[in-house]
Amino acid sequence: MSTTLRAQDISVILVEPSHPGNIGAVARAMGNMGVSELRLVRPKDPLGVEARERAAHAESLLVNASLFDSPEAAVEDLQMVFGTTARLRSRRDRGCALPDLESHLPVENTRVGFMFGRESSGLTNEELALCTTLLHIPTFGEVSSLNLSHAVMVTLYEASRFYAETSDIETPTSQNGSMQLASISELEGLKSHLENVLRTTGFLHANQETGMMERFSDFFARARPTDLDVRMWRGMLHRVEVTIQMLNGEY
Amino acid sequence: MSTTLRAQDISVILVEPSHPGNIGAVARAMGNMGVSELRLVRPKDPLGVEARERAAHAESLLVNASLFDSPEAAVEDLQMVFGTTARLRSRRDRGCALPDLESHLPVENTRVGFMFGRESSGLTNEELALCTTLLHIPTFGEVSSLNLSHAVMVTLYEASRFYAETSDIETPTSQNGSMQLASISELEGLKSHLENVLRTTGFLHANQETGMMERFSDFFARARPTDLDVRMWRGMLHRVEVTIQMLNGEY
Repeated sequence: MSTTLRAQDISVILVEPSHPGNIGAVARAMGNMGVSELRLVRPKDPLGVEARERAAHAESLLVNASLFDSPEAAVEDLQMVFGTTARLRSRRDRGCALPDLESHLPVENTRVGFMFGRESSGLTNEELALCTTLLHIPTFGEVSSLNLSHAVMVTLYEASRFYAETSDIETPTSQNGSMQLASISELEGLKSHLENVLRTTGFLHANQETGMMERFSDFFARARPTDLDVRMWRGMLHRVEVTIQMLNGEY
Repeated sequence: MSTTLRAQDISVILVEPSHPGNIGAVARAMGNMGVSELRLVRPKDPLGVEARERAAHAESLLVNASLFDSPEAAVEDLQMVFGTTARLRSRRDRGCALPDLESHLPVENTRVGFMFGRESSGLTNEELALCTTLLHIPTFGEVSSLNLSHAVMVTLYEASRFYAETSDIETPTSQNGSMQLASISELEGLKSHLENVLRTTGFLHANQETGMMERFSDFFARARPTDLDVRMWRGMLHRVEVTIQMLNGEY
């Protein structure tokens, strides 16, 4: 597997950052690491004085940041999303400790997002479910909560180890149609299609829906589906639905 | 050469930091990385409100910081001092890029300092001359100046890779009961179950059966299913079959 990244394939997504100074400091950290695409979900005052001051020479990054109403909208065109979390809990199988990032890197030319949650409470379980990998920054000692911009800084620093050295040279594309990783919106489409089938067939019981869908999510995330895989699974699910509808006399 | 460090052998030295908020943010970064010894040379207002706020849960580090009148006094008991610099210039032979820190690590039980200069102008040549190694944090793109606390954060993060002690991460054990990888026979059982459903629902066409089943095989192989995953998928497939049989009047 190729282990190179290109800074221009990386986005940073901040979900509901509430301290404008942090947003600015994140922009500066991105500027240091050559990453320019900042996506903000319901940010607080991202162009205020404090944000601009802390951005220092990376102010243009703030000005050019994209604003989104939902985390889903902010990641839908990406192919791999690392969601940062303070605890890996039971999702250990989809988890990655930051120093092990190399073993979770995508193939070349993958659009990668690093998503960071609220200063106070991080990302919700629903937001983490959007992510293809859960990323944990190890801490030592008793102070486990990282400042938001510090978290972005170390994450991009770790990512920068794998930048292709000749990043200004166009690398031969591995994107020959069928072998592209599925985008997040394709994955979400698959998951809700599956959920419908699970509901139709009575597989999902009311009291365990969330846990079961999380487990399917984990499974798909680990397999890193291509767009062709997603079409294959959706084709299979569609056939199940059609068969049931036919038997129900709906066709 | 041994490549372990102990957090308690590390000091962080800030020379003339002029933004109290940065001093607090440095304390927090140190707290995250388990480093507690902060040495301040002629700092500005290190115990003010802004410093304390930005230190968050690492406030005790600020309170316990040692104050010095000169850089010489701040490092005299240390055995190895890394001085950070934005340019390695002609001192390249004493220089180290942060990602190469491992090759410059001291032998065990060495008292190590990481020295950081003024926000505006870094360390002077005289101060760098006190250092045993010059440390450079690589940047990419046009924004080359790092925030002081960001510089401390990435430096200690890199150092933490070589800590002898373990972090707060539980080492992934994928072998605890329900989390065992599925056996080959469990996987084969799943695949033939899936094949039956694909046939029943008319998804498999005679002339492409083999290719399609290979593609599903690949997919499952990449996800590395546990025995619990296999039970989940077989449960889902079973519900599809039961639903179809019921509608066929077979139940």
